[in-house]
Amino acid sequence: MENLIIIGSGPAAHTAAIYAARSNLKPLMFEGLLAGGVAAGGQLTTTTEVENFPGFVGISGPELMEKMRQQSLHCGARIITETVDKVELSQRPFSDELPLTPTTPPSPSLLKRGLGGVKSDGKGEFNFKVFAGSQQYEAKVLIIASGATAKRMNLPGEDRLWQKGISACAVCDGALPIFRNKVLAVVGGGDSAVEEATYLTKFASQVLMLVRRDVLRASKVMQERAQHHPKIQIMFNTLPIEVLGEKSITGLKIRNTLKPSESTLSIGGLFYAIGHTPNTAFLNGQVELDEAGYIKTKLGTTQTSVPGVFAAGDVQDKVYRQAVTSAGTGCMAALDAERYLSHDEC
Amino acid sequence: MENLIIIGSGPAAHTAAIYAARSNLKPLMFEGLLAGGVAAGGQLTTTTEVENFPGFVGISGPELMEKMRQQSLHCGARIITETVDKVELSQRPFSDELPLTPTTPPSPSLLKRGLGGVKSDGKGEFNFKVFAGSQQYEAKVLIIASGATAKRMNLPGEDRLWQKGISACAVCDGALPIFRNKVLAVVGGGDSAVEEATYLTKFASQVLMLVRRDVLRASKVMQERAQHHPKIQIMFNTLPIEVLGEKSITGLKIRNTLKPSESTLSIGGLFYAIGHTPNTAFLNGQVELDEAGYIKTKLGTTQTSVPGVFAAGDVQDKVYRQAVTSAGTGCMAALDAERYLSHDEC
Repeated sequence: MENLIIIGSGPAAHTAAIYAARSNLKPLMFEGLLAGGVAAGGQLTTTTEVENFPGFVGISGPELMEKMRQQSLHCGARIITETVDKVELSQRPFSDELPLTPTTPPSPSLLKRGLGGVKSDGKGEFNFKVFAGSQQYEAKVLIIASGATAKRMNLPGEDRLWQKGISACAVCDGALPIFRNKVLAVVGGGDSAVEEATYLTKFASQVLMLVRRDVLRASKVMQERAQHHPKIQIMFNTLPIEVLGEKSITGLKIRNTLKPSESTLSIGGLFYAIGHTPNTAFLNGQVELDEAGYIKTKLGTTQTSVPGVFAAGDVQDKVYRQAVTSAGTGCMAALDAERYLSHDEC
Repeated sequence: MENLIIIGSGPAAHTAAIYAARSNLKPLMFEGLLAGGVAAGGQLTTTTEVENFPGFVGISGPELMEKMRQQSLHCGARIITETVDKVELSQRPFSDELPLTPTTPPSPSLLKRGLGGVKSDGKGEFNFKVFAGSQQYEAKVLIIASGATAKRMNLPGEDRLWQKGISACAVCDGALPIFRNKVLAVVGGGDSAVEEATYLTKFASQVLMLVRRDVLRASKVMQERAQHHPKIQIMFNTLPIEVLGEKSITGLKIRNTLKPSESTLSIGGLFYAIGHTPNTAFLNGQVELDEAGYIKTKLGTTQTSVPGVFAAGDVQDKVYRQAVTSAGTGCMAALDAERYLSHDEC
């Protein structure tokens, strides 16, 4: 029986591991094997230069994540390189002394304290199950930091030029020198796409918003912002079909969805703003999610709908999505978990 | 007229500066001159080894803060080494075209958008004023990251042994080797004191809680936790009067408040849990505070009660108080500020 299992391997997961290990909780981390389509270390492993993580004037994404991983191990966390396939969060007794069948509700003191996942009065033991590889693990507390994966279009040329002019995060990458005073394209028509396009106007000579439909999906105020911005040009009915360039992006082949014509845009950067997929499928609905699939947490904490299950990082954040904000919530999750387990011990 | 003034110099302030500078907001930071009684860099400058900031297996507090400061400058932030004496957050017009006297309410469109601090429709210009040294500065947006200062007792020997066995943060320092398997003393009788004492039981051979009164101020459930913990012993009516030791702490002279007797405890560590003072006096009530003096923010954001004024770090956090959680909220504040200013431009 583990005290704490951490699912994930990005800044949230490692910060949780560092804090939990320093609290003597002996956390076990599942870092995943290409979980969510990215290497262990999470989305930062798909970036090159990171200039905005405090403490590092410049460091590559993979290098920063390797430092965090070493730190987790140094503090005493154990790391298993397997992807979690599923979890069982139903709260069941270990012994027969406190059966929790539908006809036998949990004891009032247990309900009052909201401690379904852990020991109670020595009368029973509850646990969460985690399935990874062909093994089954049990823990008193879970921290879910499985991240979100930016959606890609999988265009020809995309893999070759990823992070060589193509990015899925304007705030992360927009300030890099390669994008200065260039024509930049943003793909997407929602609020995020307008946010990203507006952000990029600080650096670009012009920003082209490529929108598949003949209308922006963004809210009214955001539509107006895009339409009136002198540096933003919206191209409706436009579908990117191929990324051009050898060592860095030089152009984008596009198709007009209303005509059989193709043309080429000369651009110095391409930003996808077509959404993220939070990595929550393995939870199979056992934790409350919002309409976009992100884990809901009680505001100002990392507490999910299941007592003893905490969530940190991009899997519960569709607003800020930065490495350092993820790390902050990872720390919060470890402290929340530690307090939760301490309450149990009294 | 500045876009953005940042007040503070800890992890929250510098992370905000790094993000805002990368967003071309050209932030101006007031790092303070012994503001809140600590050096520029904030509370981390009073610590020695930091083991829990992600990315650094071990780094001294002052060194970490110097790295962040260099990074802020590198990204383009400007730093003034003055303490902010006061601010004026009342929203006033710059020109005479939109007078905001009590008899002339702000325009409905302005109220609707909640953008009191910034330009509106070109009809007027609003600003916040910041007073530091003998100068006056103006900005469209403020980020307050002025921190909180742990209360000390100012006992004889305290200055000499600070961070040589004396600490005001169990979560930060409790895991350090010098505290392992020692008798540790915690001063305080509130919920935080019980939290800190419980946390320290992971490392200590025994934890003595020194409580001035004959009762714990902590909540009922926390009182029970302390009373029933096998490693915690509560000493009521006990007042520390002198810290003993040369190179590191070896003992604590105490007085019983009911008798004229003094005695000496052999201890290997002393933790103050007598509260923090959030550095909010200079705001003079112009931003909504909670009953303990911390800035209230809208949960899940850094928005204060005044549109255009954001708060990050310990000045708005009495729960987690960690360097990395502060840094996370500093990032949030910069992104909130950037979005706020972008809305103004449309």
